[in-house]
Amino acid sequence: MEAFDNNEHPHRRFNPLLGEWILVSPHRAKRPWQGQKESTQALNLPAYDTTCYLCAGNERSNGVHNDAYTDVYVFDNDFPSLLEGEAEAPAETSPLFQLKPERGINRVICFSPRHDLTIPEMEVSAIQKVIQAWKEQYTDLGSRDFINHVQIFENKGAVMGCSNPHPHGQIWSQSSLPTNVEKTQANLKKYFEANGRSLLSDYIAEELQRKERVVLENEHFVVLVPFWAIWPYETLIVSKRHFGNITQMTPEETVAFADALKRLTVKYDNLFETSFPYSSGIHQTPTDGQDHPEWHFHMHFYPPLLRSASVKKFMVGYEMMAEAQRDVSSEKSAAILRDLSETHYKQK
Amino acid sequence: MEAFDNNEHPHRRFNPLLGEWILVSPHRAKRPWQGQKESTQALNLPAYDTTCYLCAGNERSNGVHNDAYTDVYVFDNDFPSLLEGEAEAPAETSPLFQLKPERGINRVICFSPRHDLTIPEMEVSAIQKVIQAWKEQYTDLGSRDFINHVQIFENKGAVMGCSNPHPHGQIWSQSSLPTNVEKTQANLKKYFEANGRSLLSDYIAEELQRKERVVLENEHFVVLVPFWAIWPYETLIVSKRHFGNITQMTPEETVAFADALKRLTVKYDNLFETSFPYSSGIHQTPTDGQDHPEWHFHMHFYPPLLRSASVKKFMVGYEMMAEAQRDVSSEKSAAILRDLSETHYKQK
Ligand SMILES: O=P(O)(O)O[C@H]1O[C@H](CO)[C@@H](O)[C@H](O)[C@H]1O
Ligand SMILES: O=P(O)(O)O[C@H]1O[C@H](CO)[C@@H](O)[C@H](O)[C@H]1O
Repeated sequence: MEAFDNNEHPHRRFNPLLGEWILVSPHRAKRPWQGQKESTQALNLPAYDTTCYLCAGNERSNGVHNDAYTDVYVFDNDFPSLLEGEAEAPAETSPLFQLKPERGINRVICFSPRHDLTIPEMEVSAIQKVIQAWKEQYTDLGSRDFINHVQIFENKGAVMGCSNPHPHGQIWSQSSLPTNVEKTQANLKKYFEANGRSLLSDYIAEELQRKERVVLENEHFVVLVPFWAIWPYETLIVSKRHFGNITQMTPEETVAFADALKRLTVKYDNLFETSFPYSSGIHQTPTDGQDHPEWHFHMHFYPPLLRSASVKKFMVGYEMMAEAQRDVSSEKSAAILRDLSETHYKQK
Repeated sequence: MEAFDNNEHPHRRFNPLLGEWILVSPHRAKRPWQGQKESTQALNLPAYDTTCYLCAGNERSNGVHNDAYTDVYVFDNDFPSLLEGEAEAPAETSPLFQLKPERGINRVICFSPRHDLTIPEMEVSAIQKVIQAWKEQYTDLGSRDFINHVQIFENKGAVMGCSNPHPHGQIWSQSSLPTNVEKTQANLKKYFEANGRSLLSDYIAEELQRKERVVLENEHFVVLVPFWAIWPYETLIVSKRHFGNITQMTPEETVAFADALKRLTVKYDNLFETSFPYSSGIHQTPTDGQDHPEWHFHMHFYPPLLRSASVKKFMVGYEMMAEAQRDVSSEKSAAILRDLSETHYKQK
């Protein structure tokens, strides 16, 4: 039998956060690509766009005008997926037809008035203001009786379903714990109860020793390509200290988090010299009023690009029916990201 | 409190196959779309393309020439995600770094020599030949010692990562039970053991009574938009008789399955008068040599289009971090599909 090689042999890896196996086909990156090409993002956006419903002072589709805001701006989503109103639960008892009304509040968060300034091009001090707004939103929404979970996320780039290039994120808060959050919580809890330590503390301690999947670090955060990553350049930002949610970050940690966000996204932009698309999102303690010592603050980045600014990884047939699959090892992706410059390519 | 309405109030539904909740925001279909538009498929493909590596007689990238085939043609994938060779399992004991070598065989199945003939435009008798090939592959691959699961699937359309428009599907067979198959099996088993009947038998019995989610049926199969569908026009083909895998289909059932495939995909093409993209795949008994009375043959269709031939649903930020979300009720989608003609729009 051949000796096993991460970069040669097909294998499966286990994601301990979701409790799921994934398939790795490291040799498959050699496959030629004749399929769909994504159109690359327009690179020269204006600083202000009169037709953009997110720019300061402009009119939104419901007739409301945005404030003449100067840094971060948060407002209720005009087309929310969740509503505050309560509806009576329907009477249905079959286990095959389970349905529950769901309540929530959705908000939009513009990162700055600049129509053309994404996180990698923002100053670290400006990114801190975004983090400050996330803290305030988590507190404000989380304090309501009927809100038990606050999902902070960003869809960046048209290929990730973003419908407006003005840099912004979203917050969907709701009564229930969403499926993936509930799974993660169950796994974090099992580990915490068995070991008395947070799963992610143990995980990053080991990763910081092994180094092969670490992309960058600073005093308070580590950024790595998780052992079980599915997207080609997927990363995870984890706080070195074990705390549960964004409001528990110290001022120093907040600066360090902004630094990690900036450095990671600069590397991302530099990878294919393009405004790198991704979906990112924070996983942290639910706002259900319970104590959750198992939670350990972290942020996921799921970027779709595989080989170039125009060729993405498709999570389709096999992946939908069977399990997630990647064409390159996490170690190789981490090495590529690690070696990239931390100066944005536009500034060279 | 307001009385609950499926088509008005945000709610969650439970998928008993995967054991997961999903979010339904039926009111959200009204949201305007300014995001990415897909380029629609070239409609006039030639019957034979000299540059296509799937057409009969043509050369593939490894120098091999395809047979001068006249109906279905199956060959080993030139860029397989899985390999037959065995590699020694690495020594690693940490529960956070679990990795297992995986073996398998991947094949490609051309549906016919015609470069331009997708399933909705094929004769029912020609579709039967595809089903016959699926049976043979399931038997051939499944009979090998190291193959415990045979995943039959199709990625149709560039938007679903299909890299060659010549109508074809794939088969990825492997040693392990993939994540989603394992989850489905566990849920089918729990139900079967508790009730002595297959989950899907009980489910379709109820759906055939309620009718609101049924798209079409024939003597042996029902096609419906599952109660817990996530994709806008997701459907499920279920056999009326409870059997576990494709080799157990009677000749009459095989004809009926071909009929269901044809009628469903014709409706799909008619929906936006385009060659409708989707990923489809069969879920059936694993080939692990064990008895699996819990399994009930079914086929999933996951089509991405939402509003038109060029606007798809993006499963991104919230969906990746939290849970799958849809913008229209299953009942509404089923009604739309049900009302569509069963004559292909090109033939009118
Ligand atoms: O095998 P193909 O057609 O080259 O590739 C397509 O299907 C595979 C199986 O679903 C996916 O892994 C690829 O991302 C997709 O592009
Ligand atoms: O809310 P937006 O930006 O209009 O929409 C985008 O993000 C949402 C949340 O991830 C998704 O449900 C949509 O499919 C996507 O297009």
